[in-house]
Amino acid sequence: MTPRQSTKQNTKAELLKAGTDIMMVKGYSNTGIAEVLKSVGVPKGSFYYYFESKEDFALEIIADFDEHYREEVLCVLRDQSMSPLSRLKKYCKNSKEKLREKQCSRGCLIGNLCQEMSSQSDVLRERLYQVMAKWRDIFAACIEEGQIQGEISKDFEASDLAEFFLSGWEGAVMRAKTTQNLKPVDTFQELMFDGILRKGL
Amino acid sequence: MTPRQSTKQNTKAELLKAGTDIMMVKGYSNTGIAEVLKSVGVPKGSFYYYFESKEDFALEIIADFDEHYREEVLCVLRDQSMSPLSRLKKYCKNSKEKLREKQCSRGCLIGNLCQEMSSQSDVLRERLYQVMAKWRDIFAACIEEGQIQGEISKDFEASDLAEFFLSGWEGAVMRAKTTQNLKPVDTFQELMFDGILRKGL
Repeated sequence: MTPRQSTKQNTKAELLKAGTDIMMVKGYSNTGIAEVLKSVGVPKGSFYYYFESKEDFALEIIADFDEHYREEVLCVLRDQSMSPLSRLKKYCKNSKEKLREKQCSRGCLIGNLCQEMSSQSDVLRERLYQVMAKWRDIFAACIEEGQIQGEISKDFEASDLAEFFLSGWEGAVMRAKTTQNLKPVDTFQELMFDGILRKGL
Repeated sequence: MTPRQSTKQNTKAELLKAGTDIMMVKGYSNTGIAEVLKSVGVPKGSFYYYFESKEDFALEIIADFDEHYREEVLCVLRDQSMSPLSRLKKYCKNSKEKLREKQCSRGCLIGNLCQEMSSQSDVLRERLYQVMAKWRDIFAACIEEGQIQGEISKDFEASDLAEFFLSGWEGAVMRAKTTQNLKPVDTFQELMFDGILRKGL
């Protein structure tokens, strides 16, 4: 990579990071490109040197967030040093710590964008759909392992339990943003683990 | 009411209806006051004759939506001609029909605004919190009746089951917007009823 290419890559990475932070709080529509450029100290007008459009910028933000989330957060669901049920509990514990750090104000970027943009952009909706499908499959694989090992109920399909876990979690995080406390997430966790995942065991 | 007052009330009601329709699809930030005024044929500049601010406009939209939702939709949860469990199933059936009518594109106005605005406006967040608390109490009362009648599990508190139902439903509706089909909602319903509400019965 030439020095010029390297600088371009660095600036692009900084713009993506700033865009993620702002979009997490303000959503897509309310994120101004000028604000993103200003926060990184990049001159106005040079945005299109890095991205084709605001939608293209959001697609790259989603891709970055997805990669980070799978490598840094969802990796716990594949951790063979713990039982599948313990991994799911660890996922909840880690995620609650993140929520607590931000006083439950930020929620999940992907959930936020699903809610805001699904009916406004087919391009974003399609990409968000693909990301959520990947995440659901990671949950489903962990749940299926737990079913095989006999610590998770076999009353329901692993893929359905994964869908229910993921959508229930996103709903509880949304509620936590509104109540500004972790109670909805705690309730979700209690009923999910004691009610559904251990049903009949 | 004088004719002038009546016209003012009518115009205000039309603005609220148009605002609700646009905000349901585009969210709060992306809803332009000019667009709302234009759709009703009200001259630019007269918005502040009816509302103090865009936030005030949204508060009135939320109040209207809440009133309508409790009277027209949540009323089924109080219908004494059906058993409590049947009422909850009827709520799901009715809500799915609404989702199907709009090809799962609109979701729930209150859920959308909770997700979008909780971290951006304390005034809106507080009002959304109050609305969701009212809705949760209506669910809890129905669930408690079902527990007393022995058709709903007593393994969990009625208020926790209500919180789990409401946040799980909102999460599933959010997922349905992204998948553009009712599968996430069907999965929620199956696991909620067969897994949680009937647990141990």
